[in-house]
Amino acid sequence: MVKESRVDVLIIGAGPSGLMCANALAGAGVDFRIIDNRPVGVAAGQADGIQPRTIEVLQSYGLADSLLKDGAQMYLCAFYNPGPDGGIERTGRAPDVTAPSARYPFKITIDQGSIESLFIESMKSQGVSVDRPMAPSSLEISEDPEELLDPSAYPVKVVLDHIPSSDSDATPEQEIVHAKFVLGADGAHSWVRKNLGFSMDGEQTEYIWGVIDFVPDTDFPDIRNRAAIHSLNGSCMIIPREGDKVRFYLQMADKDVMDPETGRIDKRKVTAENLINTARKTFHPYVVNQPKEVDWCSIYIIGQRVASNFSKHERVFIAGDACHTHSPKAGQGMNASMNDTHNLAWKLAQVLRGRADISLLKTYEFERRKYAQALIDFDREFSALFSGKPRTSENQEGVTHEQFLRAFQASGGFSSGIGVHYSPSAIVDTIHQSCAPEIIIGERMLPQIFVRAADARPVDIQDMLPADTRFKLLLFVGLLTSEQLANVRRLAEELQLPTSFLQKYGYSDQGKTQSVFDIIPIAAGHKDDVNFLDLPPVFRSHWSKVLIDDTDVTGRLGGGAYSRFGIDEKEITMVVVRPDGYVGMIAPSTALESMDKYFGSFLIGKT
Amino acid sequence: MVKESRVDVLIIGAGPSGLMCANALAGAGVDFRIIDNRPVGVAAGQADGIQPRTIEVLQSYGLADSLLKDGAQMYLCAFYNPGPDGGIERTGRAPDVTAPSARYPFKITIDQGSIESLFIESMKSQGVSVDRPMAPSSLEISEDPEELLDPSAYPVKVVLDHIPSSDSDATPEQEIVHAKFVLGADGAHSWVRKNLGFSMDGEQTEYIWGVIDFVPDTDFPDIRNRAAIHSLNGSCMIIPREGDKVRFYLQMADKDVMDPETGRIDKRKVTAENLINTARKTFHPYVVNQPKEVDWCSIYIIGQRVASNFSKHERVFIAGDACHTHSPKAGQGMNASMNDTHNLAWKLAQVLRGRADISLLKTYEFERRKYAQALIDFDREFSALFSGKPRTSENQEGVTHEQFLRAFQASGGFSSGIGVHYSPSAIVDTIHQSCAPEIIIGERMLPQIFVRAADARPVDIQDMLPADTRFKLLLFVGLLTSEQLANVRRLAEELQLPTSFLQKYGYSDQGKTQSVFDIIPIAAGHKDDVNFLDLPPVFRSHWSKVLIDDTDVTGRLGGGAYSRFGIDEKEITMVVVRPDGYVGMIAPSTALESMDKYFGSFLIGKT
Repeated sequence: MVKESRVDVLIIGAGPSGLMCANALAGAGVDFRIIDNRPVGVAAGQADGIQPRTIEVLQSYGLADSLLKDGAQMYLCAFYNPGPDGGIERTGRAPDVTAPSARYPFKITIDQGSIESLFIESMKSQGVSVDRPMAPSSLEISEDPEELLDPSAYPVKVVLDHIPSSDSDATPEQEIVHAKFVLGADGAHSWVRKNLGFSMDGEQTEYIWGVIDFVPDTDFPDIRNRAAIHSLNGSCMIIPREGDKVRFYLQMADKDVMDPETGRIDKRKVTAENLINTARKTFHPYVVNQPKEVDWCSIYIIGQRVASNFSKHERVFIAGDACHTHSPKAGQGMNASMNDTHNLAWKLAQVLRGRADISLLKTYEFERRKYAQALIDFDREFSALFSGKPRTSENQEGVTHEQFLRAFQASGGFSSGIGVHYSPSAIVDTIHQSCAPEIIIGERMLPQIFVRAADARPVDIQDMLPADTRFKLLLFVGLLTSEQLANVRRLAEELQLPTSFLQKYGYSDQGKTQSVFDIIPIAAGHKDDVNFLDLPPVFRSHWSKVLIDDTDVTGRLGGGAYSRFGIDEKEITMVVVRPDGYVGMIAPSTALESMDKYFGSFLIGKT
Repeated sequence: MVKESRVDVLIIGAGPSGLMCANALAGAGVDFRIIDNRPVGVAAGQADGIQPRTIEVLQSYGLADSLLKDGAQMYLCAFYNPGPDGGIERTGRAPDVTAPSARYPFKITIDQGSIESLFIESMKSQGVSVDRPMAPSSLEISEDPEELLDPSAYPVKVVLDHIPSSDSDATPEQEIVHAKFVLGADGAHSWVRKNLGFSMDGEQTEYIWGVIDFVPDTDFPDIRNRAAIHSLNGSCMIIPREGDKVRFYLQMADKDVMDPETGRIDKRKVTAENLINTARKTFHPYVVNQPKEVDWCSIYIIGQRVASNFSKHERVFIAGDACHTHSPKAGQGMNASMNDTHNLAWKLAQVLRGRADISLLKTYEFERRKYAQALIDFDREFSALFSGKPRTSENQEGVTHEQFLRAFQASGGFSSGIGVHYSPSAIVDTIHQSCAPEIIIGERMLPQIFVRAADARPVDIQDMLPADTRFKLLLFVGLLTSEQLANVRRLAEELQLPTSFLQKYGYSDQGKTQSVFDIIPIAAGHKDDVNFLDLPPVFRSHWSKVLIDDTDVTGRLGGGAYSRFGIDEKEITMVVVRPDGYVGMIAPSTALESMDKYFGSFLIGKT
């Protein structure tokens, strides 16, 4: 008797990508299950860097606090190059985050296990945990077109093997799961991807890198900054870590790690001692003492590849390392992976609830595959510059500091994650971009501090945009003159007509919008005289929702948003922020029909 | 057989004052016990306001985070006065915190139970809890002068009664505790105070006030701000609370609450309905609907009194409401109480460790009784203005808005807690005030953002001053030219001489200062070129300790401290911050002998 069960979403793989999805679905109340073939999570090492944008995303799930508290924060990058005597010397320091709109002007470094714990603890508080160790052994998708289009059908059949403990002789117990949707977040060697027959397109480079985590004893002055070292003995990237730990990425010479006979990496040569010795040569004239203890070390060859497809029939998806592999030095891997499923989770939730059409799921591959492709193009260029030999008087072909610094700074959008820009689609409509030219449709909503009208508390607009699967309607209502207030009341009336998107697609309860929309009015004016009760009740589901574009009591925070965004204080401008924090649509209050059309293209109206 | 035991410190009373002391002693590793006569802690109501300075203090114990997360934050105070038609109207809004140097420009409101829980949870994580219900029934202090001066003696004998549950007929079990020190933090009706025979000096006013906590349904626009209402029907103070709750303090007419025969408050008349009805008259023309539920309500007559003494033989102390009572409306009570024992705890710890002379304990009464006296003077004036009738054309003797606003703004130092200023004593030495004229000796160290030299992370200096019983030595080392670096190295050498205070009173282990001092060097200069390793090792016990007076990577935080404080970048200036965050002493590096003298006046040197 094989156990059979049904589930709305089956997630295969509990790394950062799978866990991000699981936690988001748990928060949305979706029926799901997450399995992993490892008996326990990752303890140390592996991916380490959290980009500014990923901090914003984790914040939108209420998960950034402990990260901000426990992780190391990287603010500066120092650049070292060969000096006149052949040893390295500092060429300069520069801010590590070059994206000016980043809410957090730093990257966080922390071990992957801590990131995974964040999600696991959050899920635990919602009564969900990872089923492990367990692995899929077969996956079949129905080819019946009708079934595939029916969001209530279970077209995917997966056989799961409970992996017995290594000292057991038992044959794995099996079970069959029928799922509406399956996510393969099962890493670079993804079983799901192979099962679907997707290829990984791209190539391997010939650069070999070692990586080592330890508490260094050194006189190198930038040991607590990110540092990019180009030396005559190879390159090194320093990443300070939580506590006193530091990570070194070290370029290895072939002779140090290759087996000369087979031409392959000789694992026996990859020792902490070997890596530290490489570091000592690279750091000269600075001294790196032999550490008493090493936390973790490894070696890798850089490869840049993207999967040919990210989804099959919008029923089985792949995400994270299963879709894209690249070098770790730009601190991309874990970030791209988590952001893949951050993009997918709300779409799954709204389709499963019957609020959105199943075609919405096509936007996942559309948005994330394009990003992955751009990411590996960037990584290829950056890795080549970083792995290249420095220019010296003997080597005029080498990489100059200026070349490297230019690439470093131009890469701010990628390396911070802030530059993600989704192209027009059903959920990205740029028709009225001109109403708020500086809020870029397709990019994440800019952080900006407003004060709450009711209590003058400063609040970042991003904190009003939790990843709760709802579309946020930012209503820039302008300066509340009596004339403008009349316009605002008229808009409230129009939005309460049964033909308006708010009524057609919103599920409201006693005049308060609930599961699809959340309204946040933002007035121009001063905290000393705005009365939040002047706004129509439909625009203030709670007293905390009404904001003013003014400075806080100290005059140091907030203010100037209308002018920063290019929004007219005499008009009413609506900005739609998607559940994942990206701007989907902007429209003036006079173009309600284009708003109706936007939501009508992917939401399901009341019947 | 009566159980007998010994303890270093016995704390009687587990309100905010007793718990602050207990938690601080737990952190310091002191042997103590805390008892309370209530079977459980406070659940709702009672004291509510946390002043900006108290937030700073709680932060120094690592306890502010959940407060900042869960409490309401009050930024503005709105003022209402009678309008032409007799109903109230808004005269204006102003920042509630008028102390410009406050790190937190708001007050936090939260119920007393949550504050107590903060301490109880923190103590629990250190394995300590409150013994309850238990009460003292006798207290005797030795009169032997020699015993009283011996910090290792147990001159206080207390008999404690274990209070049986109310449904039990058992006689209370007794035990005898011999304590080195006893703290009476047992409230306004303090048993300890009465036992010591201290009087409460001051007077009762005739103003009767009601207080009620509930979730209001009203069209009053300042319901989420602090609001001071002077109406023809009496005064009202609104305090927004956590969640949607609000507290009203309502001036009651005698006829509404007094028993006309006895002239005393008739408890039967103190009902939620009666209080809400008073509110409705006061708020006219704004509407306050009858609430479905009321969290808590009470009534009180304002009294302002200070105890004649705060300590007997520096062996038994009283703190909190046991020492001072005042009106709750200025949000003083809980703050003064917690700050009493914040002042006392580190002194007890250092005396018990044998690091400080027992005479140090005299500074507790010296500092805190003077503050309490000033506090009730302020409270008397403020309460009279607030309880007074508003000036109208009929009542030319009434209080004008200008009078009230002036008093409100002048009171910024008190109502924020920032203005606390301790006078010269063994631990406050103003001789070299001119070296840093804007760091006021006797006041708390000003918040100021610096960047860490090693990793450019912005950090508020207050976060480098945890309440860990250590004296922090802020070394303003100036601009690190080679000449200045030579001076810094010379100072390091001098401080390592056996005659210097650092060696005489510091207990060091391999060159790192430990239990008495912590050194924090602060350089002028730029994060792009300062090398923290240039400083002598004795000045950098950890890489995170070296700061720079520079802006962060965004240019928005930090910088300008030398000029703000009036410190010369070409000199070396030492600022001593006491373990409680107050500045005790400032000296130039050329006056090491006055620093030796300062510490020598209360610390015990190595023998």
